[in-house]
Amino acid sequence: MNKKQLIEDDIKYIWRPFTQMKSLENDLNKPIIIKRGKGIYLEDIDGNKYIDAVSSWWVNTLGHSNKRLNKALERQSKKIEHVIFAGFTHEPVIEFSKKLVKLMNNKLTKVFYSDNGSTAVEVALKMAYQYQVLKGHPEKKKFIALKNSYHGDTIGAVSVGGIDMYHKLYKPLLFEIRQALSPYCYRCPMKCDKNTCKCECLNSVEDILKEEASQIAGIIIEPLVQAAGGMIMYPPKYITKLREICDKYNILLIDDEVAMGFYRTGKLFAYEHADIVPDIVCAAKGITAGYMPLSVTVTSQEIFNAFYDDDIDGYKTFYHGHSYTAYPLALSVALENLKILEEMKIEEYLKPKIAKFSKELEKFKNHKNVGDIRQTGMICAIELVKDKETKEPFAYEDGIGKKIYLEGLKMGAILRPMWNCIYFLTPYIITEKEIEKLTDIAYKALNKVLPMGD
Amino acid sequence: MNKKQLIEDDIKYIWRPFTQMKSLENDLNKPIIIKRGKGIYLEDIDGNKYIDAVSSWWVNTLGHSNKRLNKALERQSKKIEHVIFAGFTHEPVIEFSKKLVKLMNNKLTKVFYSDNGSTAVEVALKMAYQYQVLKGHPEKKKFIALKNSYHGDTIGAVSVGGIDMYHKLYKPLLFEIRQALSPYCYRCPMKCDKNTCKCECLNSVEDILKEEASQIAGIIIEPLVQAAGGMIMYPPKYITKLREICDKYNILLIDDEVAMGFYRTGKLFAYEHADIVPDIVCAAKGITAGYMPLSVTVTSQEIFNAFYDDDIDGYKTFYHGHSYTAYPLALSVALENLKILEEMKIEEYLKPKIAKFSKELEKFKNHKNVGDIRQTGMICAIELVKDKETKEPFAYEDGIGKKIYLEGLKMGAILRPMWNCIYFLTPYIITEKEIEKLTDIAYKALNKVLPMGD
Repeated sequence: MNKKQLIEDDIKYIWRPFTQMKSLENDLNKPIIIKRGKGIYLEDIDGNKYIDAVSSWWVNTLGHSNKRLNKALERQSKKIEHVIFAGFTHEPVIEFSKKLVKLMNNKLTKVFYSDNGSTAVEVALKMAYQYQVLKGHPEKKKFIALKNSYHGDTIGAVSVGGIDMYHKLYKPLLFEIRQALSPYCYRCPMKCDKNTCKCECLNSVEDILKEEASQIAGIIIEPLVQAAGGMIMYPPKYITKLREICDKYNILLIDDEVAMGFYRTGKLFAYEHADIVPDIVCAAKGITAGYMPLSVTVTSQEIFNAFYDDDIDGYKTFYHGHSYTAYPLALSVALENLKILEEMKIEEYLKPKIAKFSKELEKFKNHKNVGDIRQTGMICAIELVKDKETKEPFAYEDGIGKKIYLEGLKMGAILRPMWNCIYFLTPYIITEKEIEKLTDIAYKALNKVLPMGD
Repeated sequence: MNKKQLIEDDIKYIWRPFTQMKSLENDLNKPIIIKRGKGIYLEDIDGNKYIDAVSSWWVNTLGHSNKRLNKALERQSKKIEHVIFAGFTHEPVIEFSKKLVKLMNNKLTKVFYSDNGSTAVEVALKMAYQYQVLKGHPEKKKFIALKNSYHGDTIGAVSVGGIDMYHKLYKPLLFEIRQALSPYCYRCPMKCDKNTCKCECLNSVEDILKEEASQIAGIIIEPLVQAAGGMIMYPPKYITKLREICDKYNILLIDDEVAMGFYRTGKLFAYEHADIVPDIVCAAKGITAGYMPLSVTVTSQEIFNAFYDDDIDGYKTFYHGHSYTAYPLALSVALENLKILEEMKIEEYLKPKIAKFSKELEKFKNHKNVGDIRQTGMICAIELVKDKETKEPFAYEDGIGKKIYLEGLKMGAILRPMWNCIYFLTPYIITEKEIEKLTDIAYKALNKVLPMGD
């Protein structure tokens, strides 16, 4: 089929995620047909190549069409693609689980599998609530979540979401939560100074707990970066202090590492920067290096033990499962991924790249519309503002992000700014030279849309 | 690693789905390590082979480690494994969507992708509610669901679930629904006779609507078979009449074909037997022939149109998406699956197998504990009872299903009865001879656990 026909069919038959479908009437918004991928590059049907600066929704880590991962997938498919995971098991999942728990220093010990980030969060929320019931506290049925948070799109995950555009409409279907402040340092809700900040925004968490701790099951956070909220970043000490608060009020700390996990912040999990251990960790995305959906919810032995029982009436069992729970194809890729990361000595491997990004971000500093430049490991974000002094944001209708995206495409990079935020979240294998190239493209795109001369 | 160590590690690090973990202390419940699969057989680490009579959680259709599907997977991995599905697309998803809509006779026209059955249902529920809001009816925020229904394990899907053991505990987190009767013909809640039944149980749906139609967004059903509820089966006329009721009261009919879709009932979708068209269809499981998680929520043009707008404020967009939405690896397998099914002339192909199952079920008829024998296409179920006259069920503690499962394993078949129901839900490629073998094993297992002499 030719390109025109393909695009027509795409628009005719497919309802796209997070997309106002009418916008596709505009030629500029027509979907781009990707033919192949190699390393950090995606190639479209016309042979145009683009740096995948968003790691195809923050999942890719070792590059597209990675030979070793392809090989692992092929090997596994010749053995078995999938087997029911109740009553049966297989070697890749055992080896992966063991390696993962070891990498987590045996602090959390039990790995529950599901299919994606949303389900990993659903599992965590259901487990946390059931844990409280089993501990004799059925009244602990509310969760605390943060403004600007995003934890997925299923109803449980939406319930703990804090982005009005995504979540507000579904309110009548959501369970009750308490919302605390977002640790949005650039626009600190407490008007604190970054340099003297003592995480005063955490008072909003403690205020809720002072009143209602007896009804709260746990708090859920995205560690260090509220990603979909606009790559909002905050320091590790926030998480350290939050752990203390959770202990003080006896609630669970649920750490949603779906976007941050598997070395995105430079460490296996972001919570390590805070030198604490959460009660439950959710991970997905990079777990398969960007190949296919798979997720884990890893819990403490303490939580697991509360469910461990003779269970005459069945109410102590965690009744949750998906058809493809821990399917061997994904686990074989996830296991090979861990092996590759180990061989690469990934934490050391990332350091010069993180430093290089840091250096290249300097060039944005003096642009009149650059309000904030922030970085956490392999995530960099540049928040654009109308006015640097007042921090006045651009309006939704200004479409600044969209314009920069289109300029980026022309120059061979998929930037996809979020709200008013240009960000880089690339595969780990990007070279220092490519970091220069990518940041140059972004800088040029920015200046095209918001020229310095204006 | 040796078998003993593998099993130890499995139990040490993994929290299994739908499993009371303490039960694994019993040697009989230790997970069986599956090494490979071929056709309808699974082979464990000791070389024992088992007929996969449950299609590894109702997903496998073309056999394990299918050569053509493996080839499709390999081909695709060498091109590209995954690309972000907002703004970008790829040929396998376009071709698959077009084929699917054509197979549905263009009655439903828009395919929305997500990752598994639960998410397909979540998408349907969110879409249905948002549709009502966009049509000016935000008060239509409740759903009707059926007793004994199962639609998945995420909070939205659990909300419309109707099996107490799985769903009741989470009540405080669930949204409000109205529950109608289960069309459980063998234990008809209206005490009707199968032969003269006019679907009187549907009165319970209409009763709700007479009172509350103005607050109801839609009804969700599992068509023809309430699978996880115990392979409860009911006739197509129920769905035909339900469609009329939905039209009369202006609510949406959401058809959860996750387990039934892709020819499990002998037709692409079960609703075809009722000669109606739902407003929304959810499908997953067999969509990839049992290879990997993928799901679709297919909607009418009417629903799609309600979201189609210039959308200045963003509230007409369907904000839902998963990182791996429509990932090429899965779509390439799903597409190859459709091609194979087409070449097989699947509907014709299944007819003699369905007839063979039907014939082989006869042998169970005279067993004193066989209460009901039922079949819908490639699903057969035998409900066991303590007393044929009174239909008194076995108690949970009797563990009849578990005992039959263990006998089945010894004889080389994975039966996994549900509640008190032995069922066969095999890959489509099972031969007539294998159907004989499988049903013989089940019959022997049944007689071992519940001897006729007793």
